[in-house]
Amino acid sequence: MRRWRIEQFGKQNLRLETVPVPTPGRGEILVRVAAVALNYRDKMNIDNGSGGAQVAPPFTPASDMAGEVVALGEDARRFAVGARVMSTFWGGWLDGEWPSHAVALGAPGPGMLSEYVLLPEDWAVAAPAALSDAHASTLPCAGVTAWSALVEHGRLHAGQTVVLQGTGGVSLFGLQLAAAHGAQAIVISGDDAKLERAQALGAAHLINRRRTPRWDEAVREMTGGRGADHVLEMVGGDNFRLSLQALRQGGRVSVIGLLGDAEIHASSVPLFLGRPTIQGIGVGHRRALEELARAAGHAGLAPVIEREYGFGDLPQAIDHLERGPFGKLVLRLDR
Amino acid sequence: MRRWRIEQFGKQNLRLETVPVPTPGRGEILVRVAAVALNYRDKMNIDNGSGGAQVAPPFTPASDMAGEVVALGEDARRFAVGARVMSTFWGGWLDGEWPSHAVALGAPGPGMLSEYVLLPEDWAVAAPAALSDAHASTLPCAGVTAWSALVEHGRLHAGQTVVLQGTGGVSLFGLQLAAAHGAQAIVISGDDAKLERAQALGAAHLINRRRTPRWDEAVREMTGGRGADHVLEMVGGDNFRLSLQALRQGGRVSVIGLLGDAEIHASSVPLFLGRPTIQGIGVGHRRALEELARAAGHAGLAPVIEREYGFGDLPQAIDHLERGPFGKLVLRLDR
Amino acid sequence: MRRWRIEQFGKQNLRLETVPVPTPGRGEILVRVAAVALNYRDKMNIDNGSGGAQVAPPFTPASDMAGEVVALGEDARRFAVGARVMSTFWGGWLDGEWPSHAVALGAPGPGMLSEYVLLPEDWAVAAPAALSDAHASTLPCAGVTAWSALVEHGRLHAGQTVVLQGTGGVSLFGLQLAAAHGAQAIVISGDDAKLERAQALGAAHLINRRRTPRWDEAVREMTGGRGADHVLEMVGGDNFRLSLQALRQGGRVSVIGLLGDAEIHASSVPLFLGRPTIQGIGVGHRRALEELARAAGHAGLAPVIEREYGFGDLPQAIDHLERGPFGKLVLRLDR
Amino acid sequence: MRRWRIEQFGKQNLRLETVPVPTPGRGEILVRVAAVALNYRDKMNIDNGSGGAQVAPPFTPASDMAGEVVALGEDARRFAVGARVMSTFWGGWLDGEWPSHAVALGAPGPGMLSEYVLLPEDWAVAAPAALSDAHASTLPCAGVTAWSALVEHGRLHAGQTVVLQGTGGVSLFGLQLAAAHGAQAIVISGDDAKLERAQALGAAHLINRRRTPRWDEAVREMTGGRGADHVLEMVGGDNFRLSLQALRQGGRVSVIGLLGDAEIHASSVPLFLGRPTIQGIGVGHRRALEELARAAGHAGLAPVIEREYGFGDLPQAIDHLERGPFGKLVLRLDR
Repeated sequence: MRRWRIEQFGKQNLRLETVPVPTPGRGEILVRVAAVALNYRDKMNIDNGSGGAQVAPPFTPASDMAGEVVALGEDARRFAVGARVMSTFWGGWLDGEWPSHAVALGAPGPGMLSEYVLLPEDWAVAAPAALSDAHASTLPCAGVTAWSALVEHGRLHAGQTVVLQGTGGVSLFGLQLAAAHGAQAIVISGDDAKLERAQALGAAHLINRRRTPRWDEAVREMTGGRGADHVLEMVGGDNFRLSLQALRQGGRVSVIGLLGDAEIHASSVPLFLGRPTIQGIGVGHRRALEELARAAGHAGLAPVIEREYGFGDLPQAIDHLERGPFGKLVLRLDR
Repeated sequence: MRRWRIEQFGKQNLRLETVPVPTPGRGEILVRVAAVALNYRDKMNIDNGSGGAQVAPPFTPASDMAGEVVALGEDARRFAVGARVMSTFWGGWLDGEWPSHAVALGAPGPGMLSEYVLLPEDWAVAAPAALSDAHASTLPCAGVTAWSALVEHGRLHAGQTVVLQGTGGVSLFGLQLAAAHGAQAIVISGDDAKLERAQALGAAHLINRRRTPRWDEAVREMTGGRGADHVLEMVGGDNFRLSLQALRQGGRVSVIGLLGDAEIHASSVPLFLGRPTIQGIGVGHRRALEELARAAGHAGLAPVIEREYGFGDLPQAIDHLERGPFGKLVLRLDR
Repeated sequence: MRRWRIEQFGKQNLRLETVPVPTPGRGEILVRVAAVALNYRDKMNIDNGSGGAQVAPPFTPASDMAGEVVALGEDARRFAVGARVMSTFWGGWLDGEWPSHAVALGAPGPGMLSEYVLLPEDWAVAAPAALSDAHASTLPCAGVTAWSALVEHGRLHAGQTVVLQGTGGVSLFGLQLAAAHGAQAIVISGDDAKLERAQALGAAHLINRRRTPRWDEAVREMTGGRGADHVLEMVGGDNFRLSLQALRQGGRVSVIGLLGDAEIHASSVPLFLGRPTIQGIGVGHRRALEELARAAGHAGLAPVIEREYGFGDLPQAIDHLERGPFGKLVLRLDR
Repeated sequence: MRRWRIEQFGKQNLRLETVPVPTPGRGEILVRVAAVALNYRDKMNIDNGSGGAQVAPPFTPASDMAGEVVALGEDARRFAVGARVMSTFWGGWLDGEWPSHAVALGAPGPGMLSEYVLLPEDWAVAAPAALSDAHASTLPCAGVTAWSALVEHGRLHAGQTVVLQGTGGVSLFGLQLAAAHGAQAIVISGDDAKLERAQALGAAHLINRRRTPRWDEAVREMTGGRGADHVLEMVGGDNFRLSLQALRQGGRVSVIGLLGDAEIHASSVPLFLGRPTIQGIGVGHRRALEELARAAGHAGLAPVIEREYGFGDLPQAIDHLERGPFGKLVLRLDR
């Protein structure tokens, strides 16, 4: 089978190597991978291992895949051969609080950019019948991050307002989840073309941050002075000040890991007067992926894929990732 | 002005009397009533005062209205003259826990079946611009009951399943809230025509309880063996056993006050094995009404009104109430 | 090694048999058992398998033990040889929602009445250094049940009032947890001698249900008319009506599995007017046991053991269980 | 009656003036003040109005008092003449979410440094019988702030660890609440004498931040590598980085308003890897004060008062406030 491998940091060191298809051990499943969704974290890991955990080559990148179970190890009972599954981003975080033995896939855990992957059966979830493999592959990291922030922690409900910064994978999932729950989304971007596409996906309000650098004031106007219920903080630095100022009394900022800026800054005044909750988000547990999968099926949520690539086109896909796609990039292994 | 008044229990004792329009005192607003929504509790109060509180004639019935502020008492600042408002079911329950000084409107608190009503300004909420007066008048009791059960207590989210018993006002609000949050509704009724109408409103599954008395098993099948996340218990008695058995592990039954049967019965086995939460619901607080109003505006929720009556047609409307309408009955005062 | 075994239902069929000490497989630990705490459920399983799950002989009874890790299987890394551990009641319920693959120890899962037991390493928790083996062995079922009801679900805090029915293991843990959290406990019993012992443990108020059958009214008086914040329902049947009536507005009844009466009955009026939460409790997850263990260490909680028996004295201990001990019965294997 | 008044910012402009005792209007109570507790915010308001709201002279400072109801306005029914009451810090915030009409006492709301004060009856709470007036006067701001952070939002329970920065009023309430809930407190201070006094109050661990500037590492050691469950952030600036690093996975930092430093800074890495909740705290609602009052009674909590002053000694008390007292400063009016 073919798999992508890196022996030294740097995109130029990615190699497509051929190795034997592995055999599942006790409690493991062997999955033939159909689609792998890329995350910006994958690029950070490839560049210099900075994607959030101690990572050192050699490794196979990527955490998010959908595929088909083709063989079962001894005692593996969660899935039948032929079942369509997705990986969980965190191997071993099933529910409740994050346990210290959990491991992130795609380094230091096993990477998904491989024609076949071995996973402990607990690290996979049934893919929703209503979603294609490409769509399903986008749920484990970007989808679960937005779900954890807005639904699991945030108790999103109809009539609320959600502010989304940029139009990457997490933000567009946030937009779709807001729409699916009867909430209104405000999307901020520096690119009018992307704002138009966000509107077509159901955004209620659009803000071009180049023309409206004080987007917090715009949010307050758009909400009749009340402020937003939820902000997904994707930028960090001084942008975080605006996020706090855009909130309603008692509102919530979810700080998504691996921001553009490695620092956040805030004034204590809105913390005192506004009583916000600021919640650090590091993807989420398996139950969140199961709930999102069920929601995607029921509510007809179709994740936004900017472009699909072939398995061999990883370098081009990473270049695209760097340019900031509208939604997700997916590598297809099934064609 | 005209108002309905009862001097002795019994529908036959309802009188339409003429009294002077009152003047708002300190902190009060005078509202010209445009629409009044009836609840089954109103009939119980008229019949024998059994609608949940110590009630004795004389009183003016009904708790739920929408209308226009026409005069302000001293220090009344929440609304301007001309504002469209709704009453809150509980006068004085603003947020958090129910306070013992709160009073139910329509006996023992002031009744809304009057061309003008006086309310402390804290007992009213702005009506959503997107809703007609008739629609807005249905929110304070039936709408807030469903909202409290499913959203405030129940944390309803996309992908969940909600079981609704019958097609009265609370159940249909439950159906519409489920749809607005990306959840699927299962509606139970003994009447195929009503089930068809529920389907048109977005119900995912229908159960005719005459043909399927073990509706709990049907729910389990419809959910792939998993069980429902939410059941709104509207019947009581032994039906409650089925509600528990229809639930998923850790699911929730909301027991709506004033059930058909005054008792509930359950076996302890599903309580041990299923870990359900059973939540008593007694309408809800003002913040719930404000949130529901915002949701109705954003999510385009149009409450189901079976029929509108003129102000003078109260006796006929009460007869209709007894027959079990599909959704709400509203008296219009503005025509 | 010796272990208790039952080939047919009935206490008279308990046999102490001798079998080889097993060898831990992959991910398993071998524990030398020092103490086993009995639960009423164990007696029900021995009598007729009615302890909550499909149980059929042969099996070894009992779910709760403390002991020492003496050997590790391949890849078992959670504990070192020599570590003191407790079993979890539910094998495989680690955190969050109960998963359907979880299995109750002591039938149908492995029973603890054995000189050595094999457990998957995930089914054990470090025993608190501050507790003896006998004390530690009482935490997994009775301790975690009270913790789940009052802390995990109930958010117990200082100044609250907790009603405890009887003086079995769960009730006395409830009493001790109330005291450890600055809350006041009201203990109900039909036995004045037991009430005196409860007072010595810190109960603020005592009710003899024989002299005061309307104990709900007594609770209301003792709380200045306000009602209790928490009731642990241990009886079922019509006693449940009193539990609801003893509650404050918005209070909580935790229904402990395997009540004396297999049914519960309630009137819908207190459900409507009191807005209680009724929570089914089926022991709890591993994280609850970890938190309880930490609490027991910090807060100096010493579980109440009525009497310790030798390993061979199981039949006498079961007779004692039937008579209703004050707190827990423990079999010691280390002497 | 005498009251303190300021016509221009600056401590030197405080004047003790004599004015007529006011008469309660509708819904108001007249209270003879027995004790007033000072907060650092009072000093900020006196200095330059920087205590968190738009404040301009003239005003009477201070928000926290205990005293006796001596007269009732029309329709005032919550208290009888002779009742002992405390003020609420926020006039009009009864429960649930902070409402925008709520007003902080002691500017811009009415100030408590007066022999008699008028309050809407909803702005007062019964003082606990077990507490002296001086003790009761410390609950409304400092006590409720710690309660909101640790109990209302933080769900404090036995076995947890709470980090307290400094030994001011809020921190010492935090220490006492931790002890009352079976949790262990770690106190940080730059003064060994104060640390000794904290130990006498029940602190489990002490850190002198002058000798141990990396107190986050010390906290991690003291918790066996796990980290703290709660940190009350009282300092701001770069200290906030240490607060995040001292937390356990999923722990909570409560940011108390009006920090020493007006800014907070953090790195995004612990936000991603540690999933903390950061909660802005702005005192709390009336229900929190009621619960704290009940807890203080049941759990025998005696607030720490560093020194009591006479009513005329306000300037000296403010000087003391500036030096950083251990606990609270109270002015007694009853002697």
